[in-house]
Amino acid sequence: MEEIKALVDNAETADLGFLDSEGMPQVRRVFCTCHKGVGRHLISTNTSSMHVQELLKNGNACLYFADGDKFQGLCLTGQAVCHQESFYREKLWHEGDEMYYPGGVTDEDYCVLEFIAEKGRFYGNLGKGDVTSEMLESWDDGAEWIGPA
Amino acid sequence: MEEIKALVDNAETADLGFLDSEGMPQVRRVFCTCHKGVGRHLISTNTSSMHVQELLKNGNACLYFADGDKFQGLCLTGQAVCHQESFYREKLWHEGDEMYYPGGVTDEDYCVLEFIAEKGRFYGNLGKGDVTSEMLESWDDGAEWIGPA
Repeated sequence: MEEIKALVDNAETADLGFLDSEGMPQVRRVFCTCHKGVGRHLISTNTSSMHVQELLKNGNACLYFADGDKFQGLCLTGQAVCHQESFYREKLWHEGDEMYYPGGVTDEDYCVLEFIAEKGRFYGNLGKGDVTSEMLESWDDGAEWIGPA
Repeated sequence: MEEIKALVDNAETADLGFLDSEGMPQVRRVFCTCHKGVGRHLISTNTSSMHVQELLKNGNACLYFADGDKFQGLCLTGQAVCHQESFYREKLWHEGDEMYYPGGVTDEDYCVLEFIAEKGRFYGNLGKGDVTSEMLESWDDGAEWIGPA
């Protein structure tokens, strides 16, 4: 559990998996530095991007954290939800984001994806194993949003 | 096209997207250093691994190459095929692989996935765009297997 927590906390990016309109798997690398425990993650992104548009139609998603040097990987599967509320917008807004969202923090093309894990699978040096929903629930009991750094 | 070719040729790893038996997207990081043009890639892996077992049932897959420093990404979608023939086994075998496959190059748990792209999408500094099947066909005309290094 400590290893998994460190993998998530030390990550700057993660890989978001989703399905396109033809049902094919797709992957995009996303900045992912705001976590609530192991199971919930916030990702700021463009509303108009293909991944947001596809996830609005089908929220089934995965979020993959990897540390190549340690040969560790965690693939969480669950749901992605698109937030437009100011709580999320302001939480993830950085100075300089105007470059991507000229309208600022209320830009219609700015949104925040929340990934909510249902379960997962962990790969490490010492083997691999399932992360069950019960494990996520017990680990994340009482967790608060931490980040972005 | 030069940018896309360099992204693929310089990659040591890529992210393989596939669907699990529940229809959820999944991602695994894989070593990917043997390419035929932009559209075909060989990946050595364990026959018993979840991604091989799921891909044998449903070959729909994607292969995502990313260069974080250059903010570039290429997501190819297509089919993954599992090869057991000695041509592929020997091509990807490395000294030291006995650590993973005690039976050597003919170990039943050793196999080679071939990813065959149908199309893709590229993200770079200067914008994004579709990679069509016609583009892949023209780029890869006459290409030979190159790698692993």
